Amino acid sequence: MSGLQIFGVAGVPEIEPGADLAVLTLRAAEAAGTPLQSGDVLVVTSKIVSKAEGRTVELADIEPSQFALDWSAQWEKDPAVTEIVLREAKRVVRQIGPILITETHHGFVCANSGVDQSSSGAHGRAVLLPLDSDESARRIRAGLLAAGLDIAVIISDTFGRAWREGQTDIAIGIAGMQPILSYIGQVDPHGHEFKVQALCSADELAGAAELVKGNLSRVPLAVIRGYAWERDDTATIAPVLRDQSRDLFR
Amino acid sequence: MSGLQIFGVAGVPEIEPGADLAVLTLRAAEAAGTPLQSGDVLVVTSKIVSKAEGRTVELADIEPSQFALDWSAQWEKDPAVTEIVLREAKRVVRQIGPILITETHHGFVCANSGVDQSSSGAHGRAVLLPLDSDESARRIRAGLLAAGLDIAVIISDTFGRAWREGQTDIAIGIAGMQPILSYIGQVDPHGHEFKVQALCSADELAGAAELVKGNLSRVPLAVIRGYAWERDDTATIAPVLRDQSRDLFR
Repeated sequence: MSGLQIFGVAGVPEIEPGADLAVLTLRAAEAAGTPLQSGDVLVVTSKIVSKAEGRTVELADIEPSQFALDWSAQWEKDPAVTEIVLREAKRVVRQIGPILITETHHGFVCANSGVDQSSSGAHGRAVLLPLDSDESARRIRAGLLAAGLDIAVIISDTFGRAWREGQTDIAIGIAGMQPILSYIGQVDPHGHEFKVQALCSADELAGAAELVKGNLSRVPLAVIRGYAWERDDTATIAPVLRDQSRDLFR
Repeated sequence: MSGLQIFGVAGVPEIEPGADLAVLTLRAAEAAGTPLQSGDVLVVTSKIVSKAEGRTVELADIEPSQFALDWSAQWEKDPAVTEIVLREAKRVVRQIGPILITETHHGFVCANSGVDQSSSGAHGRAVLLPLDSDESARRIRAGLLAAGLDIAVIISDTFGRAWREGQTDIAIGIAGMQPILSYIGQVDPHGHEFKVQALCSADELAGAAELVKGNLSRVPLAVIRGYAWERDDTATIAPVLRDQSRDLFR
């Protein structure tokens, strides 16, 4: 049977700042009896990347702006968290009721600039998205390459969407493969040329990985085996970020 | 190794109106040496469902409205296709330049009401979305149950998204399992209660299936094995469709 295998890698310890995620991943996968192989796609939950990179903030250290204070009081939010969300944003896309949708400095449109309190390991701390999630992916990929393994790396996070309820895991950083697979200009079995179709495989891979990671169990890594990706070390997540001029929903 | 296996089912013949997709799927999977098993999730590309249900339209039979004629002339579109797109819509969400984003009668927000010309088997024909894609999924699931197999069924289609380039496969119909897995009220390993997180597993499963289906090869079926779903025969895709009153981007 050809096709894909997807499995989670459990047994990753609580991540401390400065942790080498490539080494920890190799070790955990080995210990689990599922060593990584060249050709795999490794999907890493952004939370552990953020923790390894020290992208956490103590809420007690934050002095909220008047805007953050007023809005937080109105909607029973923690003003320090609101302040962090605003600092992580380059623009507020929607602020309606208690909902705050922003565009992050990276260009991701998401709730609360991707700032997370649930996985922070302490209630008085917030976890921010990695500063440069492509660079994070490249660093992990380089560590795996150094161990002789040619593995594409995706950094994933859980985002909401327009129009549809329920969140999905999507890619916020990538290394080793392009995030979008374009069929444009190719011809289907009926001889009809594809004029628009380009699939965001990176998001589909990230979502597939979520299916084995779950959110309550501590499984921050998933391996996708059998997916044929083309090596490209110039890849970044940038092609996935729709330019504001092309976006009808901002 | 626990985890998921995902494989495509090739060898499905060109689908004619009235085709029994459950029977064809069982036969093709058997012939491919990968018989279906109870507990599998079967992801069926909507195109073959539409064809089986006769949801195709001859463009020559369509008389476009003046609105469809005018707009199509301006953007070099086929006015018959534009007319079909409008008929399949309950509302135009955005019409900017050559782009026409609609809300279908089902409540899906997508380009061109999901009307497809590329897979129609003939250039003078358009394929519409299934009339009731939950009912389509239930019918296939019932056929598999009749063969003794308890299999969740997802009907998938390829949709664009707001803010992100590249399309992904998502779920437009479901039978046997709920599309959304909610963590709300549950507690993470750090004792922090999830207040908002609900994952749309159905969309992640549909996207994962796309990774093995591809769009150029004729692989309209994928099987996901090893995903633990809870049987629920009341399930529909409705919980995924964000109510307009809750939607910030229409």
